[in-house]
Amino acid sequence: MNPDLRRERAAATFNPELITHILDGSPEKTRRRREIENLIMNDPDFQHEDYNFLTRSQRYEVAVKKSASMVKKLREFGIADPDEIMWFKKLQLVNFVEPVGLNYSMFIPTLLNQGTTAQQEKWLHSSKGLQIIGTYAQTEMGHGTHLRGLETTATYDPKTQEFILNSPTVTSIKWWPGGLGKTSNHAIVLAQLFTQGKCYGLHAFIVPIREIGTHKPLPGITVGDIGPKFGYEEMDNGYLKMDNYRIPRENMLMKYAQVKPDGTYVKPLSDKLTYGTMVFVRSFLVGEAARSLSKACTIAIRYSAVRHQSEIKPGEPEPQILDFQTQQYKLFPLLATAYAFQFVGAYMKETYHRINEGIGQGDLSELPELHALTAGLKAFTTWTANAAIEECRMACGGHGYSHSSGIPNIYVTFTPACTFEGENTVMMLQTARFLMKSYDHVHSGELVCGMVSYLNDLPSQRIQPQQVAVWPTVVDINSPDSLTEAYKLRAARLVDIAAKNLRNEMSHRKSKEVAWNLTSVDLVRASEAHCHYVVVKLFSEKLLKIQDKSIQAVLRNLCLLYCLYGISQKAGDFLQGNIMTGSQITQVNQRIMELLTIIRPNAVALVDAFDFKDMTLGSVLGRYDGNVYENLFEWAKKSPLNQTEVHESYHKHLKPLQSKL
Amino acid sequence: MNPDLRRERAAATFNPELITHILDGSPEKTRRRREIENLIMNDPDFQHEDYNFLTRSQRYEVAVKKSASMVKKLREFGIADPDEIMWFKKLQLVNFVEPVGLNYSMFIPTLLNQGTTAQQEKWLHSSKGLQIIGTYAQTEMGHGTHLRGLETTATYDPKTQEFILNSPTVTSIKWWPGGLGKTSNHAIVLAQLFTQGKCYGLHAFIVPIREIGTHKPLPGITVGDIGPKFGYEEMDNGYLKMDNYRIPRENMLMKYAQVKPDGTYVKPLSDKLTYGTMVFVRSFLVGEAARSLSKACTIAIRYSAVRHQSEIKPGEPEPQILDFQTQQYKLFPLLATAYAFQFVGAYMKETYHRINEGIGQGDLSELPELHALTAGLKAFTTWTANAAIEECRMACGGHGYSHSSGIPNIYVTFTPACTFEGENTVMMLQTARFLMKSYDHVHSGELVCGMVSYLNDLPSQRIQPQQVAVWPTVVDINSPDSLTEAYKLRAARLVDIAAKNLRNEMSHRKSKEVAWNLTSVDLVRASEAHCHYVVVKLFSEKLLKIQDKSIQAVLRNLCLLYCLYGISQKAGDFLQGNIMTGSQITQVNQRIMELLTIIRPNAVALVDAFDFKDMTLGSVLGRYDGNVYENLFEWAKKSPLNQTEVHESYHKHLKPLQSKL
Repeated sequence: MNPDLRRERAAATFNPELITHILDGSPEKTRRRREIENLIMNDPDFQHEDYNFLTRSQRYEVAVKKSASMVKKLREFGIADPDEIMWFKKLQLVNFVEPVGLNYSMFIPTLLNQGTTAQQEKWLHSSKGLQIIGTYAQTEMGHGTHLRGLETTATYDPKTQEFILNSPTVTSIKWWPGGLGKTSNHAIVLAQLFTQGKCYGLHAFIVPIREIGTHKPLPGITVGDIGPKFGYEEMDNGYLKMDNYRIPRENMLMKYAQVKPDGTYVKPLSDKLTYGTMVFVRSFLVGEAARSLSKACTIAIRYSAVRHQSEIKPGEPEPQILDFQTQQYKLFPLLATAYAFQFVGAYMKETYHRINEGIGQGDLSELPELHALTAGLKAFTTWTANAAIEECRMACGGHGYSHSSGIPNIYVTFTPACTFEGENTVMMLQTARFLMKSYDHVHSGELVCGMVSYLNDLPSQRIQPQQVAVWPTVVDINSPDSLTEAYKLRAARLVDIAAKNLRNEMSHRKSKEVAWNLTSVDLVRASEAHCHYVVVKLFSEKLLKIQDKSIQAVLRNLCLLYCLYGISQKAGDFLQGNIMTGSQITQVNQRIMELLTIIRPNAVALVDAFDFKDMTLGSVLGRYDGNVYENLFEWAKKSPLNQTEVHESYHKHLKPLQSKL
Repeated sequence: MNPDLRRERAAATFNPELITHILDGSPEKTRRRREIENLIMNDPDFQHEDYNFLTRSQRYEVAVKKSASMVKKLREFGIADPDEIMWFKKLQLVNFVEPVGLNYSMFIPTLLNQGTTAQQEKWLHSSKGLQIIGTYAQTEMGHGTHLRGLETTATYDPKTQEFILNSPTVTSIKWWPGGLGKTSNHAIVLAQLFTQGKCYGLHAFIVPIREIGTHKPLPGITVGDIGPKFGYEEMDNGYLKMDNYRIPRENMLMKYAQVKPDGTYVKPLSDKLTYGTMVFVRSFLVGEAARSLSKACTIAIRYSAVRHQSEIKPGEPEPQILDFQTQQYKLFPLLATAYAFQFVGAYMKETYHRINEGIGQGDLSELPELHALTAGLKAFTTWTANAAIEECRMACGGHGYSHSSGIPNIYVTFTPACTFEGENTVMMLQTARFLMKSYDHVHSGELVCGMVSYLNDLPSQRIQPQQVAVWPTVVDINSPDSLTEAYKLRAARLVDIAAKNLRNEMSHRKSKEVAWNLTSVDLVRASEAHCHYVVVKLFSEKLLKIQDKSIQAVLRNLCLLYCLYGISQKAGDFLQGNIMTGSQITQVNQRIMELLTIIRPNAVALVDAFDFKDMTLGSVLGRYDGNVYENLFEWAKKSPLNQTEVHESYHKHLKPLQSKL
């Protein structure tokens, strides 16, 4: 092991294993996760080539091969628990994606949620075994965010009892679904349902797109890959164009809405339940933000402990770059953020399951807040992690730019999370809608509960946006609870301002919609402050549940750093709201510098606690043993350009030029 | 033309052509640039394939081919002026790089700056014609920022009158130089010079690495490509390992330092002159930041005018997404930043040439400030542009993630600028060193001049960091001059704080170096504030030089937006320094929203004024004619995965699985 890393690990004040147990949920879960990871690491079938050296077509092939072997192995090993499947996949995929992923994450769940028992019987077994390879086709070339704008049509023909599917325009071509381009033979297609001359809005249809056995596109279907992207190279995100393409009536998913054989439309009892999948996926993305950022921090912090550069004292050996204050100031707040998001992710998962059980028993009361909270937190955590991953990459200097660092792949695989499953600004505005509704409730005398209950305390009558000297301003910058209070006041103030500005715009005889648009920057700001408060609150509360004193002390410092760094970055809000004074902000900045020094000896152990296998990191710089430079050289030799001593380009283009001169 | 874009252009309040002339420098320059661009656009030899669909090895080949034809064409067309060559290259390379680029940007200039007349005679002609293809090998695997740490050695052997070059360790392997891996046959190598048993530090040597004619690596040379990166895929960034490799004494560049035949070392008269290239490259990067961000803004704003999505008023057609306040708030401050950086880039270029003329006449007086200013502005502009390009990409929603948008390639090609030619944090600390020196001068009673002259006004004795109520606080938020004053006060305050904290750390019996490290976050903050002030000042001053009233009005709004947006983002600094009050910050935020509405009708014309050819943008979304969706479909069909109806992966991996089930 690299002597720097050995020294770092020896100097830690705590046992990282104990934090690993907290992150996994229990020591037993850690044990089981490692058991599953060892299955893969010891299996020669999983020793695939490094994607970095492959062409896109080769990457696609390796990814398909991985997916196929995964299906076999999961059966062989008898792994069926969703968490266990995720551990299995995470390690096996490194920082990449799988072309058949949507079969499991969208096709099957939609079939289960929206299909009748008969439909599930017909399709479920073969899709689980990849005879049917399904995907989920919603987004169109011209339509993403605004579902009502989707143009694909499904027109019922009672004569043949079929739906006729059409992509009437270029903009209506389905665009982006994963695995659609080359891999899938079925898609759940979202289309505007027309029957008996009337449009009934969006419904889901099971559409065969390629022939089983030959895999050729069926007549009436135009399907293909949408072309190279920033990342997701091994994924065949696809397009789908349908021309008078007929499917049987039974292919409409009919658990809720139905079309009878004669074309009569029967509407669903409630549409709240379709919330479920969205909420699940978004809360999952919060966890993804945590995982991706944790990986990037692991790489950047380990590398910073191994890399020696420049000098602090002239004549002395080059220090570890982790000893530069600027490097600590770049990385430790991101590490604190990674921990914060880990705990938020775990909370979201628990909450989703708790509320989902409630829904199973008919209790929908908490659904609106959960929906609003997942929307905002999805946006807040993915935006933050997105920028933070790039900061980690750049903190690795030049080597961060090489694919050997692993961080570019983490970034390009993660960044779509800011856009898909609800574009982040749109998400923030959904949260804002809930905040405004809650504000109005309070204003009309009703109490609100849950994370927005601070709005109950808003002395709305007395407060003018710019004149909030009435807040209690005794913030203890060493107390997570007190800092949570400060974030709460900030959120309350920004919600108050947005609400008042919205009313003000409406009072100028503008329609509610125009007023909403003209206040939307304020509304996003309010949502961000609300989400920031929620993250701080969850982190602080998590501390109370930790038994081990050494662990509690370490995490408490990270929590303080997270809180104080946020205040420093958004100092304007805290000053303008009279939540803190200028001299307190100065103290905050000083305290941040002290915390950097306090966290420094534990930095490597804190990323070790994430317990990423070298294989999952896919990084030369982030290796557990810190053996960086020799490995970098070995890695580079595999570059496709190095396969010949003299590249043919020389003979073709440069040599003729040289002889001419 | 897309009707939305036609309407946008018709609605503009000014003629974009007039801004184009300002950006180019004069109408004559615009004319000449277009003349050169037309040479390329009308030449079938330049209709190369789209890099996006090629493998890395193919990209490399196309890039070499382009370079070769460029050399021929530049001669053919008689183009020799540096600006004209740049226009030529920019258009031809789209958002990519060329493997022989370093021959022209580093090898030849270093030969000219540091080679004797005899050396220039020997190598210059053949390197200009690409018989010698040179690169510049400085960075090593383990050493980037800290030049003194470089390990490569050049030991003089007086018996044979040769230097013996060695890469003594893995970390000493040269790593990163562009074109080194496969393309170059010579490199200027930086190595520690040893003669007569003594080390004289870094010197530059011309090292043949491949045999002319066969292009095979010479004995003693190990050379190759460092492997795939985030971008620069068509560039063979390389490694170079030398084992007892001998070169003649005459291959040391000896314009300044010399080694006599007997091994006697003659030291250079002055080493200030080597500043020149660094300052030139860094000031060039400021212009690159402007160009890259301008491209990204062009794409995002044109696409936002063409894309219709969601609804503002229910029942009405989907609006252009540029009509959403949140979209304007994302893009218009970035547009204003692009303009700001364009003017800063032009200023840096002028200043460099002016000071360079002075240097020619022996006047080095302005060099230290220029050096400090280019370091800081390089960091400030590249960091800002880097984040801004990604914001532009994400503002294009899902399509931004596709290479069809062009923005991922702009980003990955630009982002190394934050790291190379001086890592940005290191650059900020260099500026800080100059600021601290100037501060000390003022403190000891001397006046300082240039951009730091505001330090002369610092009433240092009276001011405590947290108690600066003595500042004049009458900021007129509608006056660029008054806002420049506000930025000046912010810079002065943060320089003052950093200087005092530095002294305070030193007074705690810490060495100057340790104190510097413990204050470095404050120092970076001070440098950033200084650079921000310089940008604001240059933008404001530029307004005064513009004759046309319609143009002045438009640019004035952009300048105001740039200033106010920065204040809003850094509100804490302005509040804490008592430079502005809370209610002024509220006014700032309101005024920003008004400016968004004011700028909205001119947004498309403002990006048209950058006058990027569609070919340079390499973007389907950013096309001048706005024909997006049909082109997107045509583009996707060229995807390598679409070359067969059924990908072989199906037959190899999925079909066997299906039959087993």
